[in-house]
Amino acid sequence: MEKGKAFQQTYKINESVYKGFVSIFQDNNPLHTDEKFAQKKGFKSKVMHGNILNGFISHFVGECLPIKNVIIHTQEIKYLKPVYLNDILIIHVEVEDYFKSVKVVEFKFYFENQNKDKVAKGKLTIGVI
Amino acid sequence: MEKGKAFQQTYKINESVYKGFVSIFQDNNPLHTDEKFAQKKGFKSKVMHGNILNGFISHFVGECLPIKNVIIHTQEIKYLKPVYLNDILIIHVEVEDYFKSVKVVEFKFYFENQNKDKVAKGKLTIGVI
Repeated sequence: MEKGKAFQQTYKINESVYKGFVSIFQDNNPLHTDEKFAQKKGFKSKVMHGNILNGFISHFVGECLPIKNVIIHTQEIKYLKPVYLNDILIIHVEVEDYFKSVKVVEFKFYFENQNKDKVAKGKLTIGVI
Repeated sequence: MEKGKAFQQTYKINESVYKGFVSIFQDNNPLHTDEKFAQKKGFKSKVMHGNILNGFISHFVGECLPIKNVIIHTQEIKYLKPVYLNDILIIHVEVEDYFKSVKVVEFKFYFENQNKDKVAKGKLTIGVI
């Protein structure tokens, strides 16, 4: 977990992720579910829920690090551009700092889509348990 | 959306939310899925994914505000205590600031469980679209 160590992982927002998210959390806001509403507001199509990206972060931390004994302490995310159905996102994650004595790792990350647009960025800290 | 305006909403992490989250995002980290592993690490039981709380925030913003024409700009969350299956969480949200000219609202929030323990807190900003 040394400083500068980088990871990346690909995620697709397919129909099953999108419909599954709506079905679990019941966020049917028209921006996410009504094509015409989203277009009237200037978007290409209905906008995917930003918190789907946070679900991908859950997967990244839980499954893609070299160790499994981890727990998320804090997360920050800034949404930069809209994400649409069937977008393919790559999360790029880098270790910013590792505080060995308190077993805390700080990461910065960003998501880019298939057009190389940076759609979100943020930070997270995890504890090694 | 005046400063100080407060909201609250109740969410339950039931089996269907938990299993749905795992099924969509495939975060099968042992802390979330292996009772014995979680107990060995000092937790009462398997710990729910923190990002389930971010799904509830999606619902809150998309469905529980007085207006529907909103989009999340930024989110920060700090996890303070573990959340377990069947916990009942209340999110308390308060308007910290409303910048009318740029149509941005800042909120602070916290989640408390059925024992009145504060399990997470954070901030979010939304845009009015």
